[in-house]
Amino acid sequence: MIQHRYADRVRQFSPLRLPDVPPNVISFGSGDAYPGGMPDMLGSARQAFTEFRSEVLQYSAAKGLPELRQWVADYVGSQGTRVTPDHVLIVNGAKHGLDLVCKLFLSPGDSVVVTKPTYMTALPIFRGYEAVFVEIGQDAEGLLTQELEECLRDIGRKGQPLPKLIYNIPEFHNPTGITMSQRRRIELVGIAQRYGILVVEDDPYRRIRFEGVSVPPIQSFDQSNCVIGLGTFSKIVAPGLRIGWVAAAPDVIEKMAWFKSDGGSCPLTQRLILEYSRAGYIIPHVNDLIRIYASHRDTMLKALSEHLPEATASKPHGGYYLWVRLSEHVNTDKLLPVALRHGVEFLPASVFYATTGPANYLRLAYSYSAPDAIEEGMRRLRAAMAELTGQPRPGIASASQRMTRDWGPGNS
Amino acid sequence: MIQHRYADRVRQFSPLRLPDVPPNVISFGSGDAYPGGMPDMLGSARQAFTEFRSEVLQYSAAKGLPELRQWVADYVGSQGTRVTPDHVLIVNGAKHGLDLVCKLFLSPGDSVVVTKPTYMTALPIFRGYEAVFVEIGQDAEGLLTQELEECLRDIGRKGQPLPKLIYNIPEFHNPTGITMSQRRRIELVGIAQRYGILVVEDDPYRRIRFEGVSVPPIQSFDQSNCVIGLGTFSKIVAPGLRIGWVAAAPDVIEKMAWFKSDGGSCPLTQRLILEYSRAGYIIPHVNDLIRIYASHRDTMLKALSEHLPEATASKPHGGYYLWVRLSEHVNTDKLLPVALRHGVEFLPASVFYATTGPANYLRLAYSYSAPDAIEEGMRRLRAAMAELTGQPRPGIASASQRMTRDWGPGNS
Repeated sequence: MIQHRYADRVRQFSPLRLPDVPPNVISFGSGDAYPGGMPDMLGSARQAFTEFRSEVLQYSAAKGLPELRQWVADYVGSQGTRVTPDHVLIVNGAKHGLDLVCKLFLSPGDSVVVTKPTYMTALPIFRGYEAVFVEIGQDAEGLLTQELEECLRDIGRKGQPLPKLIYNIPEFHNPTGITMSQRRRIELVGIAQRYGILVVEDDPYRRIRFEGVSVPPIQSFDQSNCVIGLGTFSKIVAPGLRIGWVAAAPDVIEKMAWFKSDGGSCPLTQRLILEYSRAGYIIPHVNDLIRIYASHRDTMLKALSEHLPEATASKPHGGYYLWVRLSEHVNTDKLLPVALRHGVEFLPASVFYATTGPANYLRLAYSYSAPDAIEEGMRRLRAAMAELTGQPRPGIASASQRMTRDWGPGNS
Repeated sequence: MIQHRYADRVRQFSPLRLPDVPPNVISFGSGDAYPGGMPDMLGSARQAFTEFRSEVLQYSAAKGLPELRQWVADYVGSQGTRVTPDHVLIVNGAKHGLDLVCKLFLSPGDSVVVTKPTYMTALPIFRGYEAVFVEIGQDAEGLLTQELEECLRDIGRKGQPLPKLIYNIPEFHNPTGITMSQRRRIELVGIAQRYGILVVEDDPYRRIRFEGVSVPPIQSFDQSNCVIGLGTFSKIVAPGLRIGWVAAAPDVIEKMAWFKSDGGSCPLTQRLILEYSRAGYIIPHVNDLIRIYASHRDTMLKALSEHLPEATASKPHGGYYLWVRLSEHVNTDKLLPVALRHGVEFLPASVFYATTGPANYLRLAYSYSAPDAIEEGMRRLRAAMAELTGQPRPGIASASQRMTRDWGPGNS
């Protein structure tokens, strides 16, 4: 066998490692869509394969179907960011968009600002470009812009190179569910502009809002081309279509298309989206999803307080996840294999940190599982917790017993 | 506006630049599929959206649907390369596969062996990884293995780092149409093994053979994991599905999947392929394509000898292209804008060279255009040539007039 001479980026790479999930496990792990909420796209497929047969089966433009670029421009425009189709690159999902942003801007050793915690799948993408991380905290208003500015000032004072990118999910942040306030968004744009750093705004969950009012995208406050927007049809139509977009200045889009070595994103799924939209289905479908996911969230929050009263989680106004804080001595990396044995999956805190962070958090996705599975999953999680911590088994522990442990909500 | 700080790979990048093609131009440029030969996939879509609705609209495994990985393992196996599904990564077309190979093996400054000329779209992919090129010639048996070995020996003697990859399209080479002989394939594997260099075998056209017998893939002669195979459904089903594969050792596939940041290739188009195959349509469809493209090739060769008798082109036994040699003083970069004005498009020699090479070649794709368009396109090309070279206009020039110019077939 020949000895493979891998690239430098491979030798120092640490992939996202999640355990294999045995069958019959209730999944709160990934942000998969609820199978009962999948759109009916057969009519759109019929259209695509009859009216657009040559288009959907042929190679297509690297930047995407012109009609879909226009659709995205209108959609992004409706949220307050003025763009033309020339500002839009159609990609194979938002992750592909993030990869292309990295390809365009990151040389090995360049640094990237991320929140602490941040979206776990973004981390290996950045690592694939040999980025180093600058982690910034969040509060209820989102990314701490003051901390960020102090940090950048410090980097500048030391004569070190400034970060190239600031990556954030301002609306229903993954994993914390936090929505960044308008004030902070405006401050962030100001910082980006002053320091000449690009903000990468990853905004998949915006339309999955159960209550309250959306905050305009960070990009809508940008007058200096210092924000790149990432969007996806995964959350408003279906993930399996693998179509997303990048919204940025046309010269950035032009360069990004140079590196889009996929022969054009799939024209069939692009056309399916267009036909599904043209038939007027997207808005009713999104409304269905909002209703479904709101009920999943409520079920999960109720089950959480019932089965894990020692846990705390903010009630997110949208998105797919609860970010759950457990008692300080619980390490969710250790809880996970126990939970899998009990038949329930979640993501432990550790996968969401660029470096390290508190181990007593976990992310529960309420998107995928049906309400009864959510309830059963939370019972299993309770049993796993009991096993890990040596607590009495569920059904044996009374409320008062629980209160005698050093686990009250005030503590966690 | 902020000043964008691009990555090093962007600052030194030269994209593939092709002119805009005006409407009503007859296209011999890209290797698009013949619109009249597109498969009827509506039945497969009906299956996919009813029987597999949750699968096709959900996120899917990064490495591909297990059934499709099995399908590819069987397909690759039927050509003599023994692989299991663990050797297979499903990707968004072969170009995406090539990109991932580069991501895994190329650090900036690493060198890559390519034929002279080579597939034009592979070049910007390599350039995106800041590769440098080692160009090796071809004859009627394909890549000159002796020239390659001497070159590698020379590099070794100078103490320079050996190339990481040897990229080749051994079956109906793009653009030359040459099929590498079995003897050369075996020699190439021997060289790769001795020098510890990976061969990347890009094999899209294998099944589009009009006559003669296929040569087993290079990979089928490999016992040392020194060949990575790239395949695609673009040429056997349809390009628009954007599904291809990489066949390599399981540990390479595993690492490659780390960097496949697309959230899984589209499960819908994967399932469409599986259902189309399950219904027994792939082999009849490929037979249709062979019949269509053979007739396109014959039409083009006939029109070439009629309208451009001074040109020479080998008759390819398969694939999509003629590699046409014109008289030595013709520069096809200069011919192209004239041809576009005359309403016909081709690709000039220059885009197929990593560095530079003879300018008097062009690639004509016979895949996309119908036979009558091929004939008309060749007439337009004749007119463009006449304009460029100041030759009498077609219809005015007689055979004897042509022969008086220094352009006879013996010369070109």
